[in-house]
Amino acid sequence: MRIYLAGPEVFLPDALEIAAAKKRLCAAYGLEGVFPLDPPPAAPPAERPYWMRIYLGNEAHIRSCGALIANLTPFRGPSADPGTVFELGFMRALGRPVLGYTNAGADFLDRTRAFLGPAARRRADGGWEDAEGLGLEDFGLTDNLMIDGAIAAAGGVLERHDAEGDRWRDLTAFARCVARLAGGGG
Amino acid sequence: MRIYLAGPEVFLPDALEIAAAKKRLCAAYGLEGVFPLDPPPAAPPAERPYWMRIYLGNEAHIRSCGALIANLTPFRGPSADPGTVFELGFMRALGRPVLGYTNAGADFLDRTRAFLGPAARRRADGGWEDAEGLGLEDFGLTDNLMIDGAIAAAGGVLERHDAEGDRWRDLTAFARCVARLAGGGG
Repeated sequence: MRIYLAGPEVFLPDALEIAAAKKRLCAAYGLEGVFPLDPPPAAPPAERPYWMRIYLGNEAHIRSCGALIANLTPFRGPSADPGTVFELGFMRALGRPVLGYTNAGADFLDRTRAFLGPAARRRADGGWEDAEGLGLEDFGLTDNLMIDGAIAAAGGVLERHDAEGDRWRDLTAFARCVARLAGGGG
Repeated sequence: MRIYLAGPEVFLPDALEIAAAKKRLCAAYGLEGVFPLDPPPAAPPAERPYWMRIYLGNEAHIRSCGALIANLTPFRGPSADPGTVFELGFMRALGRPVLGYTNAGADFLDRTRAFLGPAARRRADGGWEDAEGLGLEDFGLTDNLMIDGAIAAAGGVLERHDAEGDRWRDLTAFARCVARLAGGGG
């Protein structure tokens, strides 16, 4: 089965080395990892702008895969990379297995409070809100409930792992997702 | 047609008033706005946790709608609310029209650089990266290319508007999306 490897590693200078490591972990279980930077199943029209060809290529990759594993490690804020979250929603709507992992183990509420700092304040009902009055989710989840919910609805796993070293290259939690998928779990 | 009104307004204390205003704008064009906090088409199983019932309800709402308009105003960082981005990906995979708007008109690169501050640095090739070495997108877009790409692929519009007042309650750009959708455009 082809597995779409969603995550913000595409922005790293050594993206292809990380992709190769992830693909090796997949191959050890008889799975084929598909990285966003791989050549897409069909080349997008050459007359479209570069960024649109990337979009169309990624969409085609996702449609060609049987499952998706998302790197949900927090990215420039308390939540996951928006491109990755988009792809998670896309694959969930296709009805195929979605799994995720994060290399930051803390609850979403704690991470959001840490991000906001003194701007986070208590509401009269005991909940938290930001400086603009938007409430903070407090469900003991990993990220926005649509993310945790999609993975739960698909019967997948969301692996939390506190990376001690390099949080963009630690594949401990990713490997757990691959093992779970290979074992027949979502 | 039913239009799913995706956005982080659900986190505001006056979410229902904003929902009512959006629904009125839809109704003026013969469209039915569906807000995430509306009762879902079918009640999720009562034994599921509260957050999971919200997830399942939103998924059912999206499936019941013929199009989606996403509020992509930056949320706790340079990008849109991740729940909204998830829903955009979900609806795009269903092949139905998706449109979006943002009440922050600046380019994604400029917003991301402003967010990162002095941590943003030049790469040798002239591009930008953050303190962990992850590159910044520089395509003149509104947000991550998967967001702009999905709307373009669906034939939709992504309206940019610099809200002068309250960026969570300014419906100028939202109204443009509704008019576009009602006019037969995506």
